Amino acid sequence: MKIIIIGATGTIGSAVADLLEKEHEVVRASRRGPVVVDMDDPASIDALFESVEDVDAVVVTAASGALTPLDSDDDFVRGIQGKLLGQVHLVRRAMRHLRDGGSITLTSGVFDEPMPGGSFGAMVNAGLEAFVKAATIEMPRGLRVNTVGPGWVAETLERLGLDPADGTPVADVARAYVQAVEGTDQGRTIRP
Amino acid sequence: MKIIIIGATGTIGSAVADLLEKEHEVVRASRRGPVVVDMDDPASIDALFESVEDVDAVVVTAASGALTPLDSDDDFVRGIQGKLLGQVHLVRRAMRHLRDGGSITLTSGVFDEPMPGGSFGAMVNAGLEAFVKAATIEMPRGLRVNTVGPGWVAETLERLGLDPADGTPVADVARAYVQAVEGTDQGRTIRP
Repeated sequence: MKIIIIGATGTIGSAVADLLEKEHEVVRASRRGPVVVDMDDPASIDALFESVEDVDAVVVTAASGALTPLDSDDDFVRGIQGKLLGQVHLVRRAMRHLRDGGSITLTSGVFDEPMPGGSFGAMVNAGLEAFVKAATIEMPRGLRVNTVGPGWVAETLERLGLDPADGTPVADVARAYVQAVEGTDQGRTIRP
Repeated sequence: MKIIIIGATGTIGSAVADLLEKEHEVVRASRRGPVVVDMDDPASIDALFESVEDVDAVVVTAASGALTPLDSDDDFVRGIQGKLLGQVHLVRRAMRHLRDGGSITLTSGVFDEPMPGGSFGAMVNAGLEAFVKAATIEMPRGLRVNTVGPGWVAETLERLGLDPADGTPVADVARAYVQAVEGTDQGRTIRP
């Protein structure tokens, strides 16, 4: 398969790209390249699908999940652009461009417990998970769409000076994305 | 209590306003007045809270739930502005302006079964419901925030030439909003 990874320079994205590259042709895309795409900018998503052809699958791991105080003026709504609207826009573009039977894998998150600053993430994650479930009925040509909810990654926690035992090793997270690409899941949220 | 109803000219909004007016002071707001507010325009939400003082509760019933094909170019993202971002913006403004112990009641929806054109509504509703649940932890001064998921209203179905038995009478829907305003619910989705 030919697979685009968006966010391929990140902790999760590079692990997913490395794992998929053992079996597939991987196109690494991110804000800084090598193939450039900015999830905040719908036009750059359009340009990606114009420039890379014969794609079987697209995986988005580029999605910041920063905590955002409810009363912090504009950050809240700005954050919606890439994480929610960008991923929705990507699905709508990928639907037209992917090869028959291809797949789209998004990234949501895990906010099980309410926490200060978590209402933005909770909204986006629940919205994305409901979106992929509902969108399946409109997927043409056997396309599949899923989201992976990676939660905290152990390596990220470690880098932040926190206990990595509270997170999931990035290798396990990467396998969840590979399952979404190579498996038969449809409209699901896959948790590593 | 002094209560602003946004969307007070609609089927649900006028029923809610009539019911609350028996016990409370109601300010009827909508795109066409008498008090003018447009949920698509954050500045008009700000202006509403500047112009109406000493408010105990705000209820939003103005929220279109139109089906939107996933592949219909710009409608999809445009629809997010009022229904999702507008309601979120309203919560963030109301937090600052409502009297202690006041309440904010939003409108989500019911999309239990995937249907063509339903992915937008499913995303927005799930997002709003997760948002109010998560936002409670950041509510200051005893404020409450809830959403009502009215589903199909019998009177609306009848006007569309459909079977009203598939919907909920607007009187029952209005009582759900009154429960949200007068009761003690917090972070909940109330279904009539």
